[in-house]
Amino acid sequence: MSVILTNQSYGKSQVCLSYVTRRDGIHDFIQITVDVALEGDFHAAYLEGDNSNVVPTDTVKNTVYAIARIHGVESIESFAQHLAKHFCKTYPQVDSTTVSISQTLWTRVCRDGASHDHAFVGGSNERNTCRVVATNDSLLMHSGLLGLQVLKTTESGFVGFSKDQYTTLAETTDRIFATTITADWPCGDPTLDWTQIRDTVRGCLLDIFSNRYSPSVQKTLHEMAEAVLEECPQIDEIALKMPNQHHIPADIAKLGLENNNDIFVPSPEPFGVISATIRRVA
Amino acid sequence: MSVILTNQSYGKSQVCLSYVTRRDGIHDFIQITVDVALEGDFHAAYLEGDNSNVVPTDTVKNTVYAIARIHGVESIESFAQHLAKHFCKTYPQVDSTTVSISQTLWTRVCRDGASHDHAFVGGSNERNTCRVVATNDSLLMHSGLLGLQVLKTTESGFVGFSKDQYTTLAETTDRIFATTITADWPCGDPTLDWTQIRDTVRGCLLDIFSNRYSPSVQKTLHEMAEAVLEECPQIDEIALKMPNQHHIPADIAKLGLENNNDIFVPSPEPFGVISATIRRVA
Amino acid sequence: MSVILTNQSYGKSQVCLSYVTRRDGIHDFIQITVDVALEGDFHAAYLEGDNSNVVPTDTVKNTVYAIARIHGVESIESFAQHLAKHFCKTYPQVDSTTVSISQTLWTRVCRDGASHDHAFVGGSNERNTCRVVATNDSLLMHSGLLGLQVLKTTESGFVGFSKDQYTTLAETTDRIFATTITADWPCGDPTLDWTQIRDTVRGCLLDIFSNRYSPSVQKTLHEMAEAVLEECPQIDEIALKMPNQHHIPADIAKLGLENNNDIFVPSPEPFGVISATIRRVA
Amino acid sequence: MSVILTNQSYGKSQVCLSYVTRRDGIHDFIQITVDVALEGDFHAAYLEGDNSNVVPTDTVKNTVYAIARIHGVESIESFAQHLAKHFCKTYPQVDSTTVSISQTLWTRVCRDGASHDHAFVGGSNERNTCRVVATNDSLLMHSGLLGLQVLKTTESGFVGFSKDQYTTLAETTDRIFATTITADWPCGDPTLDWTQIRDTVRGCLLDIFSNRYSPSVQKTLHEMAEAVLEECPQIDEIALKMPNQHHIPADIAKLGLENNNDIFVPSPEPFGVISATIRRVA
Repeated sequence: MSVILTNQSYGKSQVCLSYVTRRDGIHDFIQITVDVALEGDFHAAYLEGDNSNVVPTDTVKNTVYAIARIHGVESIESFAQHLAKHFCKTYPQVDSTTVSISQTLWTRVCRDGASHDHAFVGGSNERNTCRVVATNDSLLMHSGLLGLQVLKTTESGFVGFSKDQYTTLAETTDRIFATTITADWPCGDPTLDWTQIRDTVRGCLLDIFSNRYSPSVQKTLHEMAEAVLEECPQIDEIALKMPNQHHIPADIAKLGLENNNDIFVPSPEPFGVISATIRRVA
Repeated sequence: MSVILTNQSYGKSQVCLSYVTRRDGIHDFIQITVDVALEGDFHAAYLEGDNSNVVPTDTVKNTVYAIARIHGVESIESFAQHLAKHFCKTYPQVDSTTVSISQTLWTRVCRDGASHDHAFVGGSNERNTCRVVATNDSLLMHSGLLGLQVLKTTESGFVGFSKDQYTTLAETTDRIFATTITADWPCGDPTLDWTQIRDTVRGCLLDIFSNRYSPSVQKTLHEMAEAVLEECPQIDEIALKMPNQHHIPADIAKLGLENNNDIFVPSPEPFGVISATIRRVA
Repeated sequence: MSVILTNQSYGKSQVCLSYVTRRDGIHDFIQITVDVALEGDFHAAYLEGDNSNVVPTDTVKNTVYAIARIHGVESIESFAQHLAKHFCKTYPQVDSTTVSISQTLWTRVCRDGASHDHAFVGGSNERNTCRVVATNDSLLMHSGLLGLQVLKTTESGFVGFSKDQYTTLAETTDRIFATTITADWPCGDPTLDWTQIRDTVRGCLLDIFSNRYSPSVQKTLHEMAEAVLEECPQIDEIALKMPNQHHIPADIAKLGLENNNDIFVPSPEPFGVISATIRRVA
Repeated sequence: MSVILTNQSYGKSQVCLSYVTRRDGIHDFIQITVDVALEGDFHAAYLEGDNSNVVPTDTVKNTVYAIARIHGVESIESFAQHLAKHFCKTYPQVDSTTVSISQTLWTRVCRDGASHDHAFVGGSNERNTCRVVATNDSLLMHSGLLGLQVLKTTESGFVGFSKDQYTTLAETTDRIFATTITADWPCGDPTLDWTQIRDTVRGCLLDIFSNRYSPSVQKTLHEMAEAVLEECPQIDEIALKMPNQHHIPADIAKLGLENNNDIFVPSPEPFGVISATIRRVA
């Protein structure tokens, strides 16, 4: 029997790093989790047990901290680029490096309208994300966010859908709409201020979600994507994933009570998932 | 062989409920998870398989929604009281009912300084909590919060500690201090505005954490408790639990690089845990 | 304002340790997670920021590994005793030490009836547990297990329960019974073979669960406890906690289909929880 | 501005189903979680808020239970095929249906060598998986498993790797090797007995892991894949993912103690990840 190795990659996952920048007594704090995956000429390791081309994943981990020392961590996008380029540049056997970063969010403690210099509140499940794929000749970058959990108590409905013998869902023009947004967009020019652009994207997503009647998750998703492409000329495409996290009216009629569309059962599962990619065309 | 049932309780855990209150087009949204535990005369069920005294946990779940219909969900404290009293009052075999509620936090979408009428952002791990233990003659209530994650990048140290042959920790007067606060306090008078009191407690905790040099988690915990008791005359006692979520300077000296106290490894485990109860005395 | 510290403890949580014992080419493998909590004279740390009595939790962590070196890890019970005694004996300011251990289970790879010398399969959520509370004069020990998930497809029912206006549960004499058992028992004599006794306990729990008709979780729980006390004369008391993890018949009547008691919705939440302590009497 | 919808899908995730088959008093029990994603002509929903082509995800959920009634759940592979075909056949607007199933494992209670008729033990994180992508003209199927956690205490090393200024890893010829295997393979002929084939695959993976010296995760992964392709002529390709879940020798030299390669720190993160696809060639 003869076999071939059709694709392979290896690397280090979940390298945790936090980084403090001090400027005149004001501290910035960044906490990130880094995944690094290497592709290239590692066949001898798989086939012959020859590790001479293998950069240990332990070294990959050390390198994350070393690159933080050398280049700092100004933004996740800049750090991911430095890190991805390092592996391609340093090791001839590495054809391609993928660096994925997820940033845990901390906001300054704010009391009586004043932001604190060095104290922060965390605990949100929202993350800023980016992903860089680098070779010696190319660099592709995506920015994104995930875990942006939103809910509105009205201005959402679902009517006129396809019906058959297994349909039991009632039509409604007033339901709770809850979702947790994942967004991801390619960055054409990696040198732009992608932190500011992410803020604009996030604002668009919140605005459309909050202020437009939603006839379906699909329509709202599309309107959110359109708004982002309208507001951010630097972005040509955006992928959105929006689970429909149902809050179902509690069935209290069976208890002899009336539900005035105010008592709901937030349902952990199953949930609907809607995902789509929208692109600007000339 | 003869045996006795020394204690027993049963009930329903993780009953999920969300509740919308509408006032002139402005919506409030409360999402809670409710645990109910009943104690009383259920021995025949254990010993003889006689279920005649057993209120099914399915009925307990239904009752959570029924009480929401009858009394509304103005605050978790008020709802927990109504619910706990219901079981004691309705079922003679129930001696004592414990209701524990955890509230998932949603904050209004805020854009350009304006709060939205019916759109909310969630995703925080912080929870408001309360616990009511009711009998027909008595009612004990605790309020609390959990998951309040805070971090400061300086103004924290740890020196002068006990040392022996297994001590490898270095003394420091400038370290990251990160913790996730759990707080719990008895409510002497269940009719006070415990929502506002919780806000005051939370503010005290943040203020002391942010603005005082911390010579140890212990000292900071004590100062936080003292501040709460000072600011809130309605509270006589507070229990605080504060894990020490270490951010350890990355050891990059072994890579030939210098760590200027700015590159850290946030350590998921093991973590230190400090907990204490502080009480006002006359 | 005057305050007192009514109780306090501190320590290290989630210290992870794995340990290999080699005997004539046959390897044993133990993986544990250790929590250590210290109580004693630490008031100066809370009140004055004086850390001189504080054994750093980092030292507590180091000590876990040191005690593993000195005494080995033969069983979780023996290791917990050595560890708890160490802190009381070494530090005069420590009045009481609580060591809690949770053991991740690994079973030998077994192929063609033969157990492997050094390869193991893991992945179970079941844990062996123990808890030791030591002072210089006393030692209390509990053994236990948690995460023992069992299910039977029949020989379980629930009838004759209390009914009222909020009751919607149907009576049934043939339902799925699924639970995840937590058991905990005091060890009078810490020198017995508690590993073998845990095996006997676990066997009793499985036997009764599997082979007796269950008229309620309560009755089955009591029978399981009775069987343990019958089989294990070394145990005088056992606490059991058994959530009722519902598998609810899927409501397909609304789809024009009949459910022959064979299609169920395993419900993640809410769930019933039954807990009780049963003690032998003379 | 003009935009296009470049790709989209929607569906229901985490539909939980358990299924009892009764044969002469012997019960089989299957518990699965089902994801269904539909692709097709749903553009009007995104662009115009016209839901007439949209099969509600609630109907998708109902259909999972209906198909269980109509066709039974003999194996996850057969059920996934019936379900995927149903959507393509029933709804002209559906071009392609992807059904992914994850099966929670339950093993019969076994006491004194006898398997129980209707009582089961669960609690493992291992899952059987399959994925079917159906159109009206085609059907692609993959089988797999995930969460197969294995560890060996010896017969694993890592030497001769690439070294540079950021390398601190020591070479070793005797380390712990722990991983959690994910495997996935295309099923050329969906009518074969894929349950039995999965058993053979699992056996091969365990055998090679247990019985061959591992000079690297890469080499062992490749040998495992080769063995599967050798043993299972029905499989032409297998993808394996194997994180390297490090157990690092505890550094107790700094405590004045010697580690005889027996005391380890199981490290939750970061971890190495190795993944590769191996294919048979003629």
